[in-house]
Amino acid sequence: MFNSIEESPLYQIANPRSIVFFGASNSISAMGTNLLMSLQAAGFEGAIYPVHLKEKKVLDLKAYRSVLDLPEVPDLAVIVLPTKIVNQTLEECGRKGIRKVAIVSGGFREVGGSGVALEEELKEIAGRYGIRVLGPNCLGVANLHHKLNTTFIPYEGDPGFIGLASQSGSFVTQLFDYLSKLGLGFSTAFSVGNEVDIDLIDSMEYLAACPNTKVIALYIEGIKRGRPFMETARLIVPHKPIVALYVGGSETGRRAGFSHTGALAGPDDLYSGMFRQSGVIRAQSVTELFDFCWVLGELPRPKGPRVVIQTHSGGPGAAAADSCGRAGLELPDLSDDTVEKLAPFVPHTGSVNNPVDLTFSKNPNDFFSSIPQILIKEKMADMLLIYFFTPSQVVKRALMQMGLSEEEIMNQAMKFTDHQCSSIARLLETDDKPIIGYTFRSLEEPSISELINRGIPVFPGPERAARAMAALVKYAKYVPPKA
Amino acid sequence: MFNSIEESPLYQIANPRSIVFFGASNSISAMGTNLLMSLQAAGFEGAIYPVHLKEKKVLDLKAYRSVLDLPEVPDLAVIVLPTKIVNQTLEECGRKGIRKVAIVSGGFREVGGSGVALEEELKEIAGRYGIRVLGPNCLGVANLHHKLNTTFIPYEGDPGFIGLASQSGSFVTQLFDYLSKLGLGFSTAFSVGNEVDIDLIDSMEYLAACPNTKVIALYIEGIKRGRPFMETARLIVPHKPIVALYVGGSETGRRAGFSHTGALAGPDDLYSGMFRQSGVIRAQSVTELFDFCWVLGELPRPKGPRVVIQTHSGGPGAAAADSCGRAGLELPDLSDDTVEKLAPFVPHTGSVNNPVDLTFSKNPNDFFSSIPQILIKEKMADMLLIYFFTPSQVVKRALMQMGLSEEEIMNQAMKFTDHQCSSIARLLETDDKPIIGYTFRSLEEPSISELINRGIPVFPGPERAARAMAALVKYAKYVPPKA
Repeated sequence: MFNSIEESPLYQIANPRSIVFFGASNSISAMGTNLLMSLQAAGFEGAIYPVHLKEKKVLDLKAYRSVLDLPEVPDLAVIVLPTKIVNQTLEECGRKGIRKVAIVSGGFREVGGSGVALEEELKEIAGRYGIRVLGPNCLGVANLHHKLNTTFIPYEGDPGFIGLASQSGSFVTQLFDYLSKLGLGFSTAFSVGNEVDIDLIDSMEYLAACPNTKVIALYIEGIKRGRPFMETARLIVPHKPIVALYVGGSETGRRAGFSHTGALAGPDDLYSGMFRQSGVIRAQSVTELFDFCWVLGELPRPKGPRVVIQTHSGGPGAAAADSCGRAGLELPDLSDDTVEKLAPFVPHTGSVNNPVDLTFSKNPNDFFSSIPQILIKEKMADMLLIYFFTPSQVVKRALMQMGLSEEEIMNQAMKFTDHQCSSIARLLETDDKPIIGYTFRSLEEPSISELINRGIPVFPGPERAARAMAALVKYAKYVPPKA
Repeated sequence: MFNSIEESPLYQIANPRSIVFFGASNSISAMGTNLLMSLQAAGFEGAIYPVHLKEKKVLDLKAYRSVLDLPEVPDLAVIVLPTKIVNQTLEECGRKGIRKVAIVSGGFREVGGSGVALEEELKEIAGRYGIRVLGPNCLGVANLHHKLNTTFIPYEGDPGFIGLASQSGSFVTQLFDYLSKLGLGFSTAFSVGNEVDIDLIDSMEYLAACPNTKVIALYIEGIKRGRPFMETARLIVPHKPIVALYVGGSETGRRAGFSHTGALAGPDDLYSGMFRQSGVIRAQSVTELFDFCWVLGELPRPKGPRVVIQTHSGGPGAAAADSCGRAGLELPDLSDDTVEKLAPFVPHTGSVNNPVDLTFSKNPNDFFSSIPQILIKEKMADMLLIYFFTPSQVVKRALMQMGLSEEEIMNQAMKFTDHQCSSIARLLETDDKPIIGYTFRSLEEPSISELINRGIPVFPGPERAARAMAALVKYAKYVPPKA
């Protein structure tokens, strides 16, 4: 660990003022060209120097025949060249005085044979010049707060609070759209590739110090430095949660990881133990990795595992109760005080157990204001889980029946949504308890996406919601909330 | 079981020629009005007779003061009235000669107290007249093939092949949109409510005989007739797969189910055993319930649990390998024949293990034609799992760079998509093996939804894909495919 983020070997890689770019041309079929286009599309504000043997200009940027011709020493070199000329290019970067290099090119240790020797040579050159290397066989870095994206895919959506360190480049690039649809984004994401120098642990340290990062996500095929990993994680966890997806624990996953980055995986139990002992929360899938990051970055820590469920439909309530039970959460009985306060809202077919099922028969606004206002105060519960099913078609149908025009209906519906979502979101400010939603509607539907925008994570189905709440409880065990 | 579907007590409930409707008015705040609006919106082609004490017309339909005034004996009565007048209405239906009634009203056994006595009385009346009752405390039925929808929510999307029998009305109504986004739909869906007469087993028998139903989904809070359930399931499973979600097995789920429909749940193990012994495939969540139905209804039965994974990215490949391992599937080594045939497509950074990772560097059309054409013939594998990541932004970026107009780009992209998706879909016809996809992109993206339309289930993330494949394997163990 270091005192300031500037000391990290990744600082200039994630926040370069200038970049020399090897491997881009004016041919769109070249990988390097696509990476440079992503960098330009991100709006990178520093100088970019493409190096090309023949072209005068590459993508409208002045091109240089050699790195040695550049008018300055750039902060970062990005190399996307055929394997056989990577090492000589690295050597030239060293001679120029460049000390941070991201090597995207593959064909090293992960392919075996001569690739292993090439990687050894690469290490030797880097060591000789004191160059810090990210990769090879990686996709570089995305730091949208710095308008930096060296990956294959243009970034969609806004930068967010998830810091990612990944042994797969795909998980840096191919989830932009997925996260953006959940209202999430990366603060900074590192693809570490073969980790010839900078590794997962360096990335964790950077992300721990990064002010835009609220939660750290790790995609792991195999950890090389076990002891330092645990020591670093233990230092970080009290300040920021870490969530890890480890895919090398099954026999099938282990073999796949090895042929991908040459990572040496270990038994599942070993990794589970390592995570548990250092306070790292383990996710079982890519989906869970980001579900857990979502709630950990967005919500306060709960005081315990007790959940009150609000629903207006019995089935979704029962399914959520079942999901909570399977995730190790508890459903306390409501206190007399809560039962009394709920009485005016309880229809004779409704129930005042937990799940609190008040059916559809009352004023729909109550589900967003009076009722959650009562439930959030329930002293027997640590979290509130709400089933969101806003049947927008039913609302529209009603307004149409009232003779409103298309435009009036749109406006009314927007006003409803706005009022309802702000009522719920206000509880996050007044009460220090996690509120989580689930639905079977699309998360992109206005009423749901508005909740998400206002800081309420809403999951497709109760089981993902329940497992995410269990992750919150787990983190709160490591780092208890203030009394 | 019966010889023809017409013998089922549910036949006239799911296929009525005429309906008498109690509880609809011209007030849009009434539940009954909304149900009648759904029925009208579905385009129901038979006669609808609203009964109302005061109104001459209800939603533009001629209204009758009493069921006794109707010009004919309707096939079905739908009752959405206050609890206290349900039984007298049922009595009047009996006197009119009506023999099929769906009672939506709640307030019976599920609320305890006097509700229990009211339900006993309801049973007595039904018995006296020989009326077959669906409900009470249900949402009726949706049979879109018959343009019938008596539920609260207008139907979205097309009718499909999933037959549902549910102890929750919400799962009949609140998943229309969810299923439609997956390209799925219900053939017929029954909400059985308190099961005072017609129950899950009757519904299963109907769905077994229903020609539009390829797979049967069950949402269960508690089964009353255990032995008949198993006997019926055993008769159905050789002809149609059955997938069940049981939520009463956890303590929290059990209590929630009881206050919902008064169902008496049993221990989780007991239900698991019951399902296993009768060939019913158990889902652990609502999501899984429909994931499993999807692949079981869409794909052929695999000969075994061996999967070959096609990817162009290492991380998604390794994550899928791990998910397959955890789901009990196997990843065989490729046979020499396959390795040889793949050779022209293998870049030096790619791997010819399983997952088959061929990276991005080749012609993108190969991923949809030549490569899966080779992999589907792999004699060591029973199923093909493909990672779909069509970076449409990258394609568009390339076409823009080539100077094409917006319209030309759109046309080109559509042609690509069409060509690629049809190449893959053709393999479903030429080879009798399941093909399943996974992606982190939105399922609504054109390239993905086109695959789905052509019969390739594509899941968000590898873990759902792997568990769905495991469900296929499980069904194939009960009902082996032809050799």
